[in-house]
Amino acid sequence: MPTVIRIDHVAVVVDDIESALEFWRDGLGLEVTHVEDVPDMHSIVAFLSTGDSELELVKPTDDDSGIARYLKKRGTSMHHICLEVDDIEYFIQRMHELDIRMINDDPIVGTGGKLIAFIHPKSTQGVLVELYEITGQEPEIRLARARSLADRALSQGKSVASAVLGFLRSLRRSGNYGD
Amino acid sequence: MPTVIRIDHVAVVVDDIESALEFWRDGLGLEVTHVEDVPDMHSIVAFLSTGDSELELVKPTDDDSGIARYLKKRGTSMHHICLEVDDIEYFIQRMHELDIRMINDDPIVGTGGKLIAFIHPKSTQGVLVELYEITGQEPEIRLARARSLADRALSQGKSVASAVLGFLRSLRRSGNYGD
Repeated sequence: MPTVIRIDHVAVVVDDIESALEFWRDGLGLEVTHVEDVPDMHSIVAFLSTGDSELELVKPTDDDSGIARYLKKRGTSMHHICLEVDDIEYFIQRMHELDIRMINDDPIVGTGGKLIAFIHPKSTQGVLVELYEITGQEPEIRLARARSLADRALSQGKSVASAVLGFLRSLRRSGNYGD
Repeated sequence: MPTVIRIDHVAVVVDDIESALEFWRDGLGLEVTHVEDVPDMHSIVAFLSTGDSELELVKPTDDDSGIARYLKKRGTSMHHICLEVDDIEYFIQRMHELDIRMINDDPIVGTGGKLIAFIHPKSTQGVLVELYEITGQEPEIRLARARSLADRALSQGKSVASAVLGFLRSLRRSGNYGD
């Protein structure tokens, strides 16, 4: 039987990554595991590790995206919860059977190369739920995106660069990736 | 060094537990692990298990509580995120040092006997964060509360009774509690 494996992450929309890190990283001591540029979502995201899950901070990079409109309407707040599943196609089919409305009727490729599909909040008592199934490409795509963001951040002198570089160094240390 | 161990649960305010279960239990297949009456919070809560964390559904039982006002203002939606820590006193002290505003400056005894303290959303970019440290009394208090709810639900013929009774049966099967 296909199952929900765990809470992969809880996403929080913020207007400033550095300010948010003063609480989540400096106050709670959570480790920043990676920072990613997600052009498709018009946003920069930072992930912090906690147990078997992560906390995702999302900052819109322009005023015209869904994330930016959410921030304008609701203010900084929790945005969605992401659940890892072992068979995303099964769960999409199951939602269809129960007349639960999907935002994505087919899985799309999300941050880091994972397969994702969002369930509409109208069918979940107001909670935007992301389903996520891991794929083999995920580490490689994540690394490429982190490098792209590091290049951009360094060229612009952004303070987020140090977090990205730390992440890249940790990847190299872990021995999973070539230099 | 004291640490955040994991996401203990994510809480969702709902206006109807049974409707919410149609999505979280029937759609996603999450197991209802316990249902509790929380008179202090003027609410009934249902917990569903997912990996190392839980999903908490909270339904106000009157119109006059903070939870009820939240529901009226924001609609059904995510309400807070609870993080298990190994030293709640340390983290409260740490928040004070960083001028992060606590709702509870001292730990209080929450659902199931755990020690909890809430951090004010004004200091966390809008996210109500609950800190939680487990205590030895937790299983006993949780069982007593579940029994109290079962009695009340049965006397009122509420449908939630079946979930409570299922939980009580599972406790007995586990052998952790006497009959």
